[in-house]
Amino acid sequence: MMNTPLLIGALLERAEQFFPKKEVVSRTLSGIHRLTYREIGKRTRRLASALEKLGVQRGDRVGTFAWNHHRHLEAYFAAPGMGAVLHTVNIRLSPEHISYIVNHAEDKVLLIDEDLLPLIERVKDELTNVEAFIIMTDQEELPATTLSPVFSYEDLLEMGNENYSFVTDLDENDPAIMCYTSATTGNPKGVIYSHRGLVLHSFALGLSDTMAISEKDIAMAIVPMFHVNAWGLPFAATWFGTTQVMPGPQFTPKLLLDLIEQEKVTFSAGVPTVWLGVLQVLEQQKYDLSSLRALICGGSAAPKGMIKTFEKKYNIPFLHAYGMTETTPMVTVSRLKSYQVDLDEENILEIRSKQGLLVPGVEMKVISGEGEVAWDGKEMGELCLRGNWIADEYYKDARTSEAFIDGWLHTGDVATIDEEGVIKLVDRTKDLIKSGGEWISSVDIENALMAHEAVFEASVVAVPHEKWQERPIACVVLKDTYRAKVTKEELLEFLRPQFAKWWLPDDIVFMKEIPKTSVGKFLKRALRDQLQNHLLGKL
Amino acid sequence: MMNTPLLIGALLERAEQFFPKKEVVSRTLSGIHRLTYREIGKRTRRLASALEKLGVQRGDRVGTFAWNHHRHLEAYFAAPGMGAVLHTVNIRLSPEHISYIVNHAEDKVLLIDEDLLPLIERVKDELTNVEAFIIMTDQEELPATTLSPVFSYEDLLEMGNENYSFVTDLDENDPAIMCYTSATTGNPKGVIYSHRGLVLHSFALGLSDTMAISEKDIAMAIVPMFHVNAWGLPFAATWFGTTQVMPGPQFTPKLLLDLIEQEKVTFSAGVPTVWLGVLQVLEQQKYDLSSLRALICGGSAAPKGMIKTFEKKYNIPFLHAYGMTETTPMVTVSRLKSYQVDLDEENILEIRSKQGLLVPGVEMKVISGEGEVAWDGKEMGELCLRGNWIADEYYKDARTSEAFIDGWLHTGDVATIDEEGVIKLVDRTKDLIKSGGEWISSVDIENALMAHEAVFEASVVAVPHEKWQERPIACVVLKDTYRAKVTKEELLEFLRPQFAKWWLPDDIVFMKEIPKTSVGKFLKRALRDQLQNHLLGKL
Repeated sequence: MMNTPLLIGALLERAEQFFPKKEVVSRTLSGIHRLTYREIGKRTRRLASALEKLGVQRGDRVGTFAWNHHRHLEAYFAAPGMGAVLHTVNIRLSPEHISYIVNHAEDKVLLIDEDLLPLIERVKDELTNVEAFIIMTDQEELPATTLSPVFSYEDLLEMGNENYSFVTDLDENDPAIMCYTSATTGNPKGVIYSHRGLVLHSFALGLSDTMAISEKDIAMAIVPMFHVNAWGLPFAATWFGTTQVMPGPQFTPKLLLDLIEQEKVTFSAGVPTVWLGVLQVLEQQKYDLSSLRALICGGSAAPKGMIKTFEKKYNIPFLHAYGMTETTPMVTVSRLKSYQVDLDEENILEIRSKQGLLVPGVEMKVISGEGEVAWDGKEMGELCLRGNWIADEYYKDARTSEAFIDGWLHTGDVATIDEEGVIKLVDRTKDLIKSGGEWISSVDIENALMAHEAVFEASVVAVPHEKWQERPIACVVLKDTYRAKVTKEELLEFLRPQFAKWWLPDDIVFMKEIPKTSVGKFLKRALRDQLQNHLLGKL
Repeated sequence: MMNTPLLIGALLERAEQFFPKKEVVSRTLSGIHRLTYREIGKRTRRLASALEKLGVQRGDRVGTFAWNHHRHLEAYFAAPGMGAVLHTVNIRLSPEHISYIVNHAEDKVLLIDEDLLPLIERVKDELTNVEAFIIMTDQEELPATTLSPVFSYEDLLEMGNENYSFVTDLDENDPAIMCYTSATTGNPKGVIYSHRGLVLHSFALGLSDTMAISEKDIAMAIVPMFHVNAWGLPFAATWFGTTQVMPGPQFTPKLLLDLIEQEKVTFSAGVPTVWLGVLQVLEQQKYDLSSLRALICGGSAAPKGMIKTFEKKYNIPFLHAYGMTETTPMVTVSRLKSYQVDLDEENILEIRSKQGLLVPGVEMKVISGEGEVAWDGKEMGELCLRGNWIADEYYKDARTSEAFIDGWLHTGDVATIDEEGVIKLVDRTKDLIKSGGEWISSVDIENALMAHEAVFEASVVAVPHEKWQERPIACVVLKDTYRAKVTKEELLEFLRPQFAKWWLPDDIVFMKEIPKTSVGKFLKRALRDQLQNHLLGKL
């Protein structure tokens, strides 16, 4: 049987061959651009050949610092297509982390969005390897900048060759993309994605039982392209000839809704905070969202109330999924099994709010001190993963040994598995609350709080306690209309019937906003720091 | 990134883990059996360990001579799961070819259906390598047989270990399955399928844009498991936890329809002759077929009229697909692109009756003497294929060099490609009719004839002609109700407006039946032999 390498370049080639007329709808600073896959293909080949002329060679890293738009998509294929490695830099990192990762990855060139220039200018003197800055601007003239040497993306394309051939003599295990993930402490950790892993992951995204990405879709990845390959959607969608909508810079929930309505988006993917924002706008304004066949929510747990609102009130199938930077990311998708569809609404919601079933192509085990946990939906353990789109190291980083043990990725996520094999995340290993020797899941309490009609966001953290070692404190942001109208006693009363008494938070602290990480997750470390003396002297 | 081998055993393991309650519905001589994937898993492990005790080692070939049923499914996973190679012997081959391929593959054991025993008994003295015959019977007592040594399948399972672990230290490129394909002349040619190829092919079968096999499906492969892995369905369906219905021995169209209705089959796959038979029954009897979401037709071209009847009269989506033994088999599936759905009925039918679009993961080119043909839907050339589920040789066979050239499989199928990249097969290279230096597609004329309401089957072959070298003759089987009521002149009149004058057959010969190959394709060689003097002396 033939063994032809699984390579990223072939995904775009299929779109060029069979779907040359299908479009990528891209929003940039100057408005909406519509490019066909034929055009995207030619521009990508031009970019690859121009990068080669700039001195980029096989194995070199090509950094991007950009929103979701067509130029970023072109870079997604040009760098791996020429045998180089695309490094998507998270634009929300601190200046220190930005310069750390650009240097650590040894990015040779950096493609930068015009509006993000100041963030790179601020760190330019720290960058040790970048030989060329390429500005992705719509303008004919390059904007004024302190970076040097600078090139205009479109000028570079002009000098490129639209018939450039993607290299095919790569090993499918060669790196194609890299992305850094934030660490609790210390510098971000680099994850490398191989051609093989990304192509297999693209297959998995097209399966009927996972995301079912199809040529018929009009797909909008809201999840940033600088964050785990926008969950792999740009690769799968291009391969299958899917129309892509790319929301560009500084989008708002309203803008996303406008795009969904205008472009008849069928499929979109984002983190819970994005969907919370969308829900808030929907409460005030009517949109025709009938084109949507599914919204995917991942990155952190989707509150049950959110799933329910999208599905019941707005009639939009809302799929919960799970993954992480180290896993490309798709690991589980929460869909009902065929024999579960007739369960009552509450049971269905309960299943759908879990992280879901392992997708084909990945292996898992959930381990506690005593080995693998029982599949009873109760016993908690650390989720471990193995498979072709799971990382096996942090790039040149001693922390590799903490997470990659005996051929498995130890995710740091604490989970239960129920009788059906469905995973439910109950916490991060480091966020679990250990009170009097027993474990309390901060996530369970958060989800319960967020199901209250007055609660916009809730985060529960462990706070040192003299008697119990740790006790939970809930940090709550109320919806605007409920501000100062709901008391902590009311919320505790709301929780009481749902939990054992010793699970109830010792206090509820109202906040205007919960601090978040660069990818929109609750920054629990900051909350813990802020509240560390909160229970001082309490018994 | 991790590189974990893509192995067949893992597909069944997923069903055992996540879909232990889902069922395989299997018809055998004694009736319908219902086994869960948990049971199938245990029985498969028992079989693997029993085969090991019988002396089967890694790399050894395990032959099957069987219909589609649960025991055959167990063998599909047991042999590759233990590192051996499953060899599915085509039960419809001649005795000479059966003994040839069992010997050529060096089958060490042979698993045989009870009702097929006579076919093996007849050739037993010719078999050089078989050390054990295993009878797949429902009975407690083994049937009387001249084979020796013989074992009862179920007795063997009793002595097997249900906790047997599938081997995981295989190379994914190792052979998992083999299957012989009939040659025009000479012995059948062996094709080997690797674990890698079969797993990737299974991914491809689950894609929304191809077969979309899903856990929600109730899938019935009518295509035999001794013929190109039943088109890969047993692997994909098991992996995704799909309910499988296996129609067992000597089924009739009526039995298939009963199964579809009773088991609420959603998806089924078979060759055109099967669907023709089904249509004939449907014309006489009412069935509730509302569970069906798609029928797949492959193996040879589906006549337009058949597609139309299923879709318009019976409201059943009918998908045309293409592949061959050398291609695992899925290569193309005929689905409309999203922007084609509003075309008029005739145009849609025209597209749907072509072989379709290349599925993700395979590469193609269509070459004539002058290089690749234009994508104009007119220029004809030989279809060549490359990819991870395309064979790269015939097993120990000098004919390898005829079909595998420069890394491509030369299929021997003549095709056109239209502007949309859709393939249409116009003939086998050897069946093309060359009349006065111009090519005539026998398939086009056949399809046109089969669109006539009176025609049940039609086959067009080249017959030697003194002036034009070759001329087409049409062999036609009329539907029962039209027998002797339609003349050749009427049929020629029907064809006249559809073709250039010189494409029209020189004669139409009515037959009771068209001779077929062991897999149900028209045996054109036999027709050509029969008709070779038909135009003698004609000018």
